[in-house]
Amino acid sequence: MSWTNSKNTDLVERAQAVIPMGMYGHQSVLLLPDDYPQFFRRAKGVHLWDVDGNRYLDFLCGYGPNLFGYGDPEIDDAYIAQLREGDTMTGPGEVMVELAEAMVGLIAHADWAMFCKNGTDATTMALMIARNHTGRNTVVLARGAYHGAAPWCTPLKKGVAPGDRANQVFYDYNDVESLEAAVREAGDDLAAIFASPIKHDTFVDQELPDPAYARRARELCDERGALLIVDDVRAGFRLARDSSWSLVGVKPDLSSWGKAIANGHPISALLGADICRMAAATIYATGSYWFSAAPMAAALKTLARIRDTDYLERTQALGRRLREGLDESAARHGLALRQTGPAELPLIMVDDDPTLAKGYFWTQALMKRGVYFHPWHNMFICAAMTEADIDFAVEAADEAFKLLKAAGPLEAPAKLGFMNQMLDH
Amino acid sequence: MSWTNSKNTDLVERAQAVIPMGMYGHQSVLLLPDDYPQFFRRAKGVHLWDVDGNRYLDFLCGYGPNLFGYGDPEIDDAYIAQLREGDTMTGPGEVMVELAEAMVGLIAHADWAMFCKNGTDATTMALMIARNHTGRNTVVLARGAYHGAAPWCTPLKKGVAPGDRANQVFYDYNDVESLEAAVREAGDDLAAIFASPIKHDTFVDQELPDPAYARRARELCDERGALLIVDDVRAGFRLARDSSWSLVGVKPDLSSWGKAIANGHPISALLGADICRMAAATIYATGSYWFSAAPMAAALKTLARIRDTDYLERTQALGRRLREGLDESAARHGLALRQTGPAELPLIMVDDDPTLAKGYFWTQALMKRGVYFHPWHNMFICAAMTEADIDFAVEAADEAFKLLKAAGPLEAPAKLGFMNQMLDH
Repeated sequence: MSWTNSKNTDLVERAQAVIPMGMYGHQSVLLLPDDYPQFFRRAKGVHLWDVDGNRYLDFLCGYGPNLFGYGDPEIDDAYIAQLREGDTMTGPGEVMVELAEAMVGLIAHADWAMFCKNGTDATTMALMIARNHTGRNTVVLARGAYHGAAPWCTPLKKGVAPGDRANQVFYDYNDVESLEAAVREAGDDLAAIFASPIKHDTFVDQELPDPAYARRARELCDERGALLIVDDVRAGFRLARDSSWSLVGVKPDLSSWGKAIANGHPISALLGADICRMAAATIYATGSYWFSAAPMAAALKTLARIRDTDYLERTQALGRRLREGLDESAARHGLALRQTGPAELPLIMVDDDPTLAKGYFWTQALMKRGVYFHPWHNMFICAAMTEADIDFAVEAADEAFKLLKAAGPLEAPAKLGFMNQMLDH
Repeated sequence: MSWTNSKNTDLVERAQAVIPMGMYGHQSVLLLPDDYPQFFRRAKGVHLWDVDGNRYLDFLCGYGPNLFGYGDPEIDDAYIAQLREGDTMTGPGEVMVELAEAMVGLIAHADWAMFCKNGTDATTMALMIARNHTGRNTVVLARGAYHGAAPWCTPLKKGVAPGDRANQVFYDYNDVESLEAAVREAGDDLAAIFASPIKHDTFVDQELPDPAYARRARELCDERGALLIVDDVRAGFRLARDSSWSLVGVKPDLSSWGKAIANGHPISALLGADICRMAAATIYATGSYWFSAAPMAAALKTLARIRDTDYLERTQALGRRLREGLDESAARHGLALRQTGPAELPLIMVDDDPTLAKGYFWTQALMKRGVYFHPWHNMFICAAMTEADIDFAVEAADEAFKLLKAAGPLEAPAKLGFMNQMLDH
């Protein structure tokens, strides 16, 4: 096998000296199978090259931002043209108004837009606006949902003070009774209900939203004068050309966006309805680069592509082709997958694999064959993929299934024990 | 006068429809003198052009990021070259390790680096690391200091819940007794002391750090096993090629950086000492674009310029030339300025001006003469400025002083009443 990783190994060693534990956050390979490369040299279209020159068909898409292909010439040229004219200035450019108009034009529930950098910026602003709008503090959130990595929401509790998590009540996604109980517990202090557009928590099967649950969340907010917040940072424009909950006919008051909206350029957004416009205008939230014009120019071009092309139908068809191809391949080897969530935003885990040992083995084998899969995080279909790319992945998966079948019993990945300890739950 | 603003007026009206109150955050002109342009078309070198084509010599420098001139060709080319190769990928590039090595090489107190997007990301991570390191919650902060715009620190209280501000005790900058009292109040729960490198609060005179105060902050942290955090986001590399507190001989445990480190490209950083490396490794903080390679390539080029050129001595000399020129001009008109802080990071206010009426009048007159000053926020000397630029500003200021002298008594700017109401203190 031609796969090598000596340059990655050297870089990891250098990183250990100057970055805590060598890397942090969602792009650390600490909890990925052994040999997953930490450092990449190049990204173009649907492919990544690690620092050793190994090429991967990338189903992580930068954990979401890569919608139309890495280095899309039209979108990057728009970025560069605006950069040459003016990017981080002493005030915003005209492009900020154009982008707000474009977002509001595309997202039915939205009357206004604010732009920021991190998805967490947008969810945190949503939280603040709901509290400002209602004059109340309690927010109701789905247990295990990811809404960012600030003290109020980050999945690990290290460095979090009790005050950061005050005024939070949890429910189980898609469970109307549990939602109602949480709202009762919030009582007359309910400021907001947070919801992911689909259940896309890590390590567990994804779930599409039950329309009855989504409608009940809307009703409960209306009854109580609270705000409904849909966190579309990860799934936004992956499932619909509108808010992801347009698919279940429910309009949120606030929605958070990021990742795909500028095809990898740094920008996120909070969209809102008129009802909370004044509350949005009177919080103070800002950042050094929130008004930079170049990512806005890239976002405008990305939104035009979203509005005017069949990218969505194509990624859905590619996702179905992958799902069906993998299921057939697994069955041929007497194995089965748990493929959950929308086909265009797939979570793919090996069935009957409580320790993830099989999933780690299988994704590692795929990785070494040039297909970058993730063992416990949802993946993304890139609109620049072709049927031939999908077939390449299915073929690699087939070889990986064969190896998995031949491997016999596997030990639980030791690194996951570390994670459970960190999660502290 | 050739200054016009019809295009800005049209854009402001369009913005009102799709952005709450037309703009938000530190780049809103809501609290600037009337007619300050909200939207800009172009930025190059030391100049800004608004959407009506008016040109300004810009002393705000994008509120800090513009250190070497807007659109610096070498830095932007480094950004674009990395963008063409790979930017927001499924993992970081080699450039992340190089940048961490460069930062650690430049900043004496630092053994490791983490990169993020907003200055607020870095200060929030510092807070979390201090809490994680000590297992305690209370942080001691200077009253009125700006450390970002998250719920725990944003200057306005709208949308902030009581829990967000739990475990905070305040002291007065440069006041050792007040610092000691705050630390006593924190008792055995002290996690960290936060300090701005200089007092650069808005609306009040700036102050250089008293070395006795800085040393006492270090001692108190050492005695209590707490961490000393210097927030260098705004002043970093403006005063020194090392931590700004290297000038007073005090090493923090953690320092936050942003703005100037990539000459306008979106990146911020947290640097830390070995003592809290493990605490840094075990918090969870991340963002969609924190690992993007292009801003890191731009930062590397910027750091090389910082390390290898006399930019610092030049901006200091230009700052002194501005300070002296303005003082002489004011005196000629029987007026005086309060010019505080370092000359290269000047806050310039009109003396004897409790309502800011004179300052608003004077900066507005400067603005209409093509010099962009701020009436109550510190400004920045750009390393791309020349003596001729400074002389142009002084000449415009001289004309503005003449008009101010002739204007007679002025009414207090009504918009500041609104601000005091928002500040709620």
